[in-house]
Amino acid sequence: MRIRLGYDIRFDVPVPVTFVAMLQVHPSRLQDLLEPDELLVSPAMPQEAYLDSFGNRCSRFHVSTGETKLEGRTLIKDSGCQDPQNLDAMEIPVAELPPDTLRYLIASRYCEVDRLSAVARDLFDDVVPGWSRVQAICDWVYRKITFGYSYARSTKTALDVFTERLGVCRDYQHLAIAFCRSLNIPARYATGYLGDIGVPAAPTPMDFSAWFEAYLGDRWWTFDARHNEPRIGRVLMAVGRDAADVAITTSFGIANLKYFQVVTDQVVEHE
Amino acid sequence: MRIRLGYDIRFDVPVPVTFVAMLQVHPSRLQDLLEPDELLVSPAMPQEAYLDSFGNRCSRFHVSTGETKLEGRTLIKDSGCQDPQNLDAMEIPVAELPPDTLRYLIASRYCEVDRLSAVARDLFDDVVPGWSRVQAICDWVYRKITFGYSYARSTKTALDVFTERLGVCRDYQHLAIAFCRSLNIPARYATGYLGDIGVPAAPTPMDFSAWFEAYLGDRWWTFDARHNEPRIGRVLMAVGRDAADVAITTSFGIANLKYFQVVTDQVVEHE
Amino acid sequence: MRIRLGYDIRFDVPVPVTFVAMLQVHPSRLQDLLEPDELLVSPAMPQEAYLDSFGNRCSRFHVSTGETKLEGRTLIKDSGCQDPQNLDAMEIPVAELPPDTLRYLIASRYCEVDRLSAVARDLFDDVVPGWSRVQAICDWVYRKITFGYSYARSTKTALDVFTERLGVCRDYQHLAIAFCRSLNIPARYATGYLGDIGVPAAPTPMDFSAWFEAYLGDRWWTFDARHNEPRIGRVLMAVGRDAADVAITTSFGIANLKYFQVVTDQVVEHE
Amino acid sequence: MRIRLGYDIRFDVPVPVTFVAMLQVHPSRLQDLLEPDELLVSPAMPQEAYLDSFGNRCSRFHVSTGETKLEGRTLIKDSGCQDPQNLDAMEIPVAELPPDTLRYLIASRYCEVDRLSAVARDLFDDVVPGWSRVQAICDWVYRKITFGYSYARSTKTALDVFTERLGVCRDYQHLAIAFCRSLNIPARYATGYLGDIGVPAAPTPMDFSAWFEAYLGDRWWTFDARHNEPRIGRVLMAVGRDAADVAITTSFGIANLKYFQVVTDQVVEHE
Repeated sequence: MRIRLGYDIRFDVPVPVTFVAMLQVHPSRLQDLLEPDELLVSPAMPQEAYLDSFGNRCSRFHVSTGETKLEGRTLIKDSGCQDPQNLDAMEIPVAELPPDTLRYLIASRYCEVDRLSAVARDLFDDVVPGWSRVQAICDWVYRKITFGYSYARSTKTALDVFTERLGVCRDYQHLAIAFCRSLNIPARYATGYLGDIGVPAAPTPMDFSAWFEAYLGDRWWTFDARHNEPRIGRVLMAVGRDAADVAITTSFGIANLKYFQVVTDQVVEHE
Repeated sequence: MRIRLGYDIRFDVPVPVTFVAMLQVHPSRLQDLLEPDELLVSPAMPQEAYLDSFGNRCSRFHVSTGETKLEGRTLIKDSGCQDPQNLDAMEIPVAELPPDTLRYLIASRYCEVDRLSAVARDLFDDVVPGWSRVQAICDWVYRKITFGYSYARSTKTALDVFTERLGVCRDYQHLAIAFCRSLNIPARYATGYLGDIGVPAAPTPMDFSAWFEAYLGDRWWTFDARHNEPRIGRVLMAVGRDAADVAITTSFGIANLKYFQVVTDQVVEHE
Repeated sequence: MRIRLGYDIRFDVPVPVTFVAMLQVHPSRLQDLLEPDELLVSPAMPQEAYLDSFGNRCSRFHVSTGETKLEGRTLIKDSGCQDPQNLDAMEIPVAELPPDTLRYLIASRYCEVDRLSAVARDLFDDVVPGWSRVQAICDWVYRKITFGYSYARSTKTALDVFTERLGVCRDYQHLAIAFCRSLNIPARYATGYLGDIGVPAAPTPMDFSAWFEAYLGDRWWTFDARHNEPRIGRVLMAVGRDAADVAITTSFGIANLKYFQVVTDQVVEHE
Repeated sequence: MRIRLGYDIRFDVPVPVTFVAMLQVHPSRLQDLLEPDELLVSPAMPQEAYLDSFGNRCSRFHVSTGETKLEGRTLIKDSGCQDPQNLDAMEIPVAELPPDTLRYLIASRYCEVDRLSAVARDLFDDVVPGWSRVQAICDWVYRKITFGYSYARSTKTALDVFTERLGVCRDYQHLAIAFCRSLNIPARYATGYLGDIGVPAAPTPMDFSAWFEAYLGDRWWTFDARHNEPRIGRVLMAVGRDAADVAITTSFGIANLKYFQVVTDQVVEHE
């Protein structure tokens, strides 16, 4: 399967400002790219590419006063398979976890493990460890939280989600991540493209999406407390501790979003 | 100057538990060590050494039920000079900061940049940028916060410190770090040894200490909003975004602290 | 001047639920009413009228499943004068305040005096006490907070307003109230009708409004950190410590708002 | 049974300050007093007595710079019976609650009903309503929270108690109150004397204590999530929404506590 990816994001910038963007696909998907994956900034500005400490592709550039457009368009090959599942995947004792997974056990800006660990233990201590426990966390979050775009706010943490029971996709994942970490299961935030492939009705406009990954057995597995069902066609852009680490765009100063469009379409194959 | 460093930390462990310790001096000081710097765990357990994503030396080990003692003792060479200062060091525009400093602009568990940036701008927007502005932040925090060991708590964030005006050394640094980041000055949390060398009266028992580093000009500089004066003999152990990243010891389960002693003594040279 | 007041509020009620409404004008304005001021509930349900501990007129009633309409319409005489001002009104020492004003010095749900008092002292300690200080508080809040209906949320406190700098009218008043109380100035939350009489352009649809009262000299005075200018035609409905005390309608169970209209029109006199 | 009550509280006052004290027994116990119940302030200052909006006896006075001593001593008759219980007492529908109990359903400073109601419903929706449900709340709080004087802080709310699981007696009651209100059970905070009468071992020094009252059937009943067992000899001083309403002493400015002693002794009857 091939998926057409793209975005068109425009800002109004009152005074010159520096951006960092994480708008390219994740290095782990480079071998699937069928077209170049480049960020076009207009008016054109020099970009500096680097990998952050999580291994995400970042681009830094400075923009002038006025409208700035960030645009990209690429084509990617996809297995066309649903998110892999392994119901037998086990929780790994902290003593045996790969060292580079340990940072995903720690409290972070939006995942206050220290404030939610007692709650997590109340809710999930008696659940069978392993895949079934992470799934139980997703089920709980999915069932208890009500979705609504108007519930988004930049300061909302996992604890806020737990008490308010309202949120957007990032909020679902933050709460699930905080619960996993509270039980010593490494969990990290993921952001990327998620189209409506295989989904009967997809009423909402395309957007970037968030999901999370939990470390079970010997690898990271995709979970999604917002949709809570295996999906086809996720294209990872960035992973981090939580949304603070993987903002699609960060402006170090004022930049007013004027337009936002994301494309994630399965390319129908003509024979 | 030579400084004798050491610690003796004991826990009572009700059920076997895994620890991660950051009890060794930071790699940046390896060339100053005059004796081996090893963590002794008793009863003896195998340790796994690794560097975390910040470059800190970590040791992971599993301990059995009962008392566990963590002990270390080493000798280090020190310049004997005060924390270097450079009143001319400038703030660097985000567009020109080294990419690996950018992670220290982001909100973290205890430094809610998103919630404190308006306050920071109210307080420090009009201060001359550069060294003087970071110093102004330290002065403000030092003057406004009252120190007290009873004010410590594990969930206390920079915003809590700002509203409660009470704290221990980590709290002072968290607030100063959040203010710096709000102004786009990279700031990171540091933990290590800080003795009383050159300090007329040192009434409190030795402990590990926290300070912070701000990136100005072309390097990281030491600041300390708790003491707010240049000191002699800091020995860095670990740096991170905030205290969540650099806990001296983390137990992934229950471990009750029973005894805690830290030694940081200047070795008097006999002729 | 005569003002036509009215409202039409409709809820969809999935299971029978009890309401408390504060939809009638405050007892202090009873002598100005030119028509009866009655709450019509349809389908008709028996109402129990009582005064709460603040002296507000409350009505309690139970409604059945289905749509419930709350409707009212009355006519009130108004001085047509702007909110009275007295730039000479003084702050009264706590020792001399009337005892029934003291409850308005205490922290309440949305006005965390304990967490904002240090901030209030930083900002307003040096301002000339009395009317000018309350005005300085209003000026600060008015200047620093950005208005937007999308910023409303039921859990938002004065501290949230202070850190997020975004809100609706209740949020402005909560922050100003918390600052006043922090300085030992009694301040209470007020809700009622506020039309656009005397306001050149009134782009927003009518709604109930919130303002606050501060006790200076020998009486309560109206302040409004949201509009921050004297207005004509406020009609008070209820006062309390904060919005928690004076919700226009409270349902003790689920009730989904379906329609909301408020009327506040100056009746043009025909000669 | 007769109980000797008394207190000796001393403050160091750097600049003259006004106090409000709630140090006298509650009006509901006036008929039990066997000796006058007067607050002695030394150096002597004129006191103004008044009842607050909850019906508590308050005393306001201004003190000069220096040490101020608040002293009282009285004797009270007590039934010698345990806190009354009525396992058949029922929850009353909101539509039928006495109007003056409704204020105890609302969120208050330390009892954020709005943030804890979903949690309360998760935990207690399936419990048999009435006495058994309030008892279930007490059992949960008693079992989950760990007591410690070092866990006290003035800004700690019910939500903090729920997440931190640490507290003093006021914290236990705040969480239980918030849970009750979330289920539409009126609950109010109570403070007073509680000795060790009938308690086998009473290791802690006497202090004022906090408990709470829930409205079931046709009256308020005493509950105590801290001790969670019926006790003998409670002497009520004040009730309110939460601890913000019933501080034993409030100083409207700086007053440093220097000494604190409370006496609550059963008077042994000599024949």
